[in-house]
Amino acid sequence: MGIRLGPNQYGKAENRVVRIRRDTGTPGRHEIRDLNVTTTLRGDFEDVHVTGDQAHGLPTDTQKNTAFAYAKLHGVSSPEDYALALATRLRDACTAAVEASVHVQELAWDRVPVGPDGHDHTFVRRGTEVRTTEVTVGATTTVTSGLTDLVLLKTTGSEYAGFQRDEFTTLEDAHDRILATSLTATWRHRDAGERDWDAAYAAVRAVLVETFASTHSLAMQHSLFEMGRAALEAHDDLVEVSLTAPNKHHFLVDLSPFGLDNEGEVYIAADRPYGLIEATVVRDDA
Amino acid sequence: MGIRLGPNQYGKAENRVVRIRRDTGTPGRHEIRDLNVTTTLRGDFEDVHVTGDQAHGLPTDTQKNTAFAYAKLHGVSSPEDYALALATRLRDACTAAVEASVHVQELAWDRVPVGPDGHDHTFVRRGTEVRTTEVTVGATTTVTSGLTDLVLLKTTGSEYAGFQRDEFTTLEDAHDRILATSLTATWRHRDAGERDWDAAYAAVRAVLVETFASTHSLAMQHSLFEMGRAALEAHDDLVEVSLTAPNKHHFLVDLSPFGLDNEGEVYIAADRPYGLIEATVVRDDA
Amino acid sequence: MGIRLGPNQYGKAENRVVRIRRDTGTPGRHEIRDLNVTTTLRGDFEDVHVTGDQAHGLPTDTQKNTAFAYAKLHGVSSPEDYALALATRLRDACTAAVEASVHVQELAWDRVPVGPDGHDHTFVRRGTEVRTTEVTVGATTTVTSGLTDLVLLKTTGSEYAGFQRDEFTTLEDAHDRILATSLTATWRHRDAGERDWDAAYAAVRAVLVETFASTHSLAMQHSLFEMGRAALEAHDDLVEVSLTAPNKHHFLVDLSPFGLDNEGEVYIAADRPYGLIEATVVRDDA
Amino acid sequence: MGIRLGPNQYGKAENRVVRIRRDTGTPGRHEIRDLNVTTTLRGDFEDVHVTGDQAHGLPTDTQKNTAFAYAKLHGVSSPEDYALALATRLRDACTAAVEASVHVQELAWDRVPVGPDGHDHTFVRRGTEVRTTEVTVGATTTVTSGLTDLVLLKTTGSEYAGFQRDEFTTLEDAHDRILATSLTATWRHRDAGERDWDAAYAAVRAVLVETFASTHSLAMQHSLFEMGRAALEAHDDLVEVSLTAPNKHHFLVDLSPFGLDNEGEVYIAADRPYGLIEATVVRDDA
Repeated sequence: MGIRLGPNQYGKAENRVVRIRRDTGTPGRHEIRDLNVTTTLRGDFEDVHVTGDQAHGLPTDTQKNTAFAYAKLHGVSSPEDYALALATRLRDACTAAVEASVHVQELAWDRVPVGPDGHDHTFVRRGTEVRTTEVTVGATTTVTSGLTDLVLLKTTGSEYAGFQRDEFTTLEDAHDRILATSLTATWRHRDAGERDWDAAYAAVRAVLVETFASTHSLAMQHSLFEMGRAALEAHDDLVEVSLTAPNKHHFLVDLSPFGLDNEGEVYIAADRPYGLIEATVVRDDA
Repeated sequence: MGIRLGPNQYGKAENRVVRIRRDTGTPGRHEIRDLNVTTTLRGDFEDVHVTGDQAHGLPTDTQKNTAFAYAKLHGVSSPEDYALALATRLRDACTAAVEASVHVQELAWDRVPVGPDGHDHTFVRRGTEVRTTEVTVGATTTVTSGLTDLVLLKTTGSEYAGFQRDEFTTLEDAHDRILATSLTATWRHRDAGERDWDAAYAAVRAVLVETFASTHSLAMQHSLFEMGRAALEAHDDLVEVSLTAPNKHHFLVDLSPFGLDNEGEVYIAADRPYGLIEATVVRDDA
Repeated sequence: MGIRLGPNQYGKAENRVVRIRRDTGTPGRHEIRDLNVTTTLRGDFEDVHVTGDQAHGLPTDTQKNTAFAYAKLHGVSSPEDYALALATRLRDACTAAVEASVHVQELAWDRVPVGPDGHDHTFVRRGTEVRTTEVTVGATTTVTSGLTDLVLLKTTGSEYAGFQRDEFTTLEDAHDRILATSLTATWRHRDAGERDWDAAYAAVRAVLVETFASTHSLAMQHSLFEMGRAALEAHDDLVEVSLTAPNKHHFLVDLSPFGLDNEGEVYIAADRPYGLIEATVVRDDA
Repeated sequence: MGIRLGPNQYGKAENRVVRIRRDTGTPGRHEIRDLNVTTTLRGDFEDVHVTGDQAHGLPTDTQKNTAFAYAKLHGVSSPEDYALALATRLRDACTAAVEASVHVQELAWDRVPVGPDGHDHTFVRRGTEVRTTEVTVGATTTVTSGLTDLVLLKTTGSEYAGFQRDEFTTLEDAHDRILATSLTATWRHRDAGERDWDAAYAAVRAVLVETFASTHSLAMQHSLFEMGRAALEAHDDLVEVSLTAPNKHHFLVDLSPFGLDNEGEVYIAADRPYGLIEATVVRDDA
């Protein structure tokens, strides 16, 4: 009976790297990039696990140091660009590594609205939404961009009807319901070549949000497919869009015991359970 | 040895009331108010506790029903206006109640940016920041408005120096540091008379944010006092401002082992511990 | 129109102090106390806020250093004893302080069950329940002990009936329901004199849990009062018990559409809203 | 340019199913199983996404109803047994499904210690630790058992030394450090045949905990491999063990500025960043 090491990986999770740019061309005007960085190494780490010999494992503490040092050495022009540099460095630095991944969450800040261009050095957190990227440098290099916790809600323009029924089905057809979600989306780029990653992010995010709004939804799945299709159609650079959408149920409250009608006016937002819908939309030549 | 009931209260916490307005004057154009409502009753509930006789206790389930029914019956023109109506009703409805409080958290939504005026019926969650109100109806009526989780950060314009030192002090004077917080603020109104509560909220919030930005801070306490003072000076309607501010530390990372300088460019955002600063600023005639 | 500083306080929150005892009398056998410590100072901090002069404010960083240094200097024989020493030190060390409070949460660990007495130096976290203490040293000294997140549930022996009804009441009388809560309790000691704080804690906790179990409950309020009364009756040292209990609703699921009865067998555990019941039980001579 | 649907799945997440057994053979003595159940369907859901035709998609609401109905119809003798029945039902009930997965988290309760056998119908939540199972019924049936949030800590018997160094390495060799984690583990069974799932769970959990304690650790990876190997050696029924372990760092506090030594006595428990170590140990014939 043989017992052996199977798939494994390790790294440093949630390095909270805050990078201030002070040399912005305008004296006293600063820029901020606020990142949560997780690094992961994969490769030949048999000894590290089985004999406990650490000679070919780069400490997670060193990975942390490198994440902060690279915020200075390479800078953070975008999460994608920074992650590419950091993943390449870590793959090269660790002798036993075959592949390095860097996952970045970016927290967005807006300038405090003072004066025509906003305050020079004071910022207010934009929201719950988080921009993400996952870069893997190995035999090939892949760059995925995305977002999480984008909370969307439509008060109409959403149906769910004509579904399969069995003996445990009590749900009625709904031809006008609230549709709400906290979207997680990722989109994989065709290659890792240089581009304006910030502009690319903004463009894909806008397509997703606009398509959610403009689609007359027949189901959350239907909305997700339309969103993925629209993103792929608008951006040749993308080869795959993955969408995860909890169906955050809003139930119409029965006010009839109190002699009140409720034509789509008062809802209770439920916590659990919730539908959980996941779909990937791909380009055929991907 | 006598043992007796001391202070007590009860209610229903976190009713997630979502109110859609469909009769907005523009067919198909909807408005949304998204509330988390907590009700609390105080009064003569001796029997309820000591003998278990519930005859004079209005169930929390009824309080929940009332919170939802009032979203329809009274409507939600603002959190404050809704809370006043609901607190008055609950105080009157419960025979043993002397006082009712209603606490509301409002989650903000923006229209999805489609067309010149935004989408008619699709919304995106604005951010982490939550607008709050606490209304108490009893012998007198008090209305407090506020906010929580307003995350602010300055990259400069903040000092902390000349503080008291003892044998456990290792901190150095700082004449240029990051100042960051997740602000909770409440402001008490002089009376409960009708006004434009939404406009009042926006105005006080703006003063707090602008003062945080424009104050050259000598300590978080100093910033808080200036913020409270500015709000009281700008709004005669307010008699007291309370501010709670965790000092979310951002530590400069030591990059010197790698031969790199770090003149205020790369920071680590720390989780715990954090300073916790609380101050109230009051009007003398309050 | 005068504007002035009102009530204020500051300190360092959530110092995660882990104290290992290695000199336990048995070589190689260790003990662990795992604390989350928050310090707070109150006093004459007018200058600190109004002029920004910090000369009489002891930095929160120093408070942090003191919390860790006192884990060594004074040791942690119990949260209460440690908090008393730390609060006294901080009140004395800060020239402008009139009063210092120290709040401690203790996370409990059990020895891993290896051998008759458990493993010498390996521990497993006991549970969600957290032991707490709040000590204030000022004109007088008060010691409050307590716990939070003690999750209790009875499957029967709980009623809620005969309550007040109004036009928004839909709830039916319940003569056999699940009663569940996540209890927060604090109990104030008559004085701060030395005693076996660990034994005192265990004894009061046991009375609360046993009374929750053995009381035929007519309402959550009724259970809370009985629990507080039992603790006061059993422990002369206590003068006041405060209890906060969310009523974690478990709703019987309607299985009748599927031709199934459900006599108290299948429930859904709801998240929100929840009842929130708070009561204090006091000794008359307190 | 073709755009098409890629991998997709859907279901109902976090059904909070609480099952009380009242017919335990002892009148008045109850048992409780407290589950958080997530169902997932995979199959031919092209129409559901692309045309919006829902005829072959079983609603997530029906999946919820089935989860609760099966707690009654089939009962919950163990999470695994219940999940097998529910997954089989859902795969069969949904015409387009090829595969159904059911994921269960079980929250543990202990009887309140009253009398020799504990209280008949009052329970106290055991801890943070959650028992899990994931069952998939499709072309084949797989049963994985596991746990999450098992928090373990050793005060000694842990080294990390001799690791790879590069120019960003500042970490020193450690020959005696705290090792702490919040373990997530899963173990895949050879088949889905009937067995005493509760006893199997307890046995594997015990091996994991004991091996963590008894291994002189050369790295978290080393401990994980030993734990996986021990579980596979002790239980022929298992073919694979997967372990995910955040390295919850405890840093020795530098007390030398205060003239105090600190020989492994006072630590700060850090939040972020943390090492994140993942390893799978497999049987060769798996």
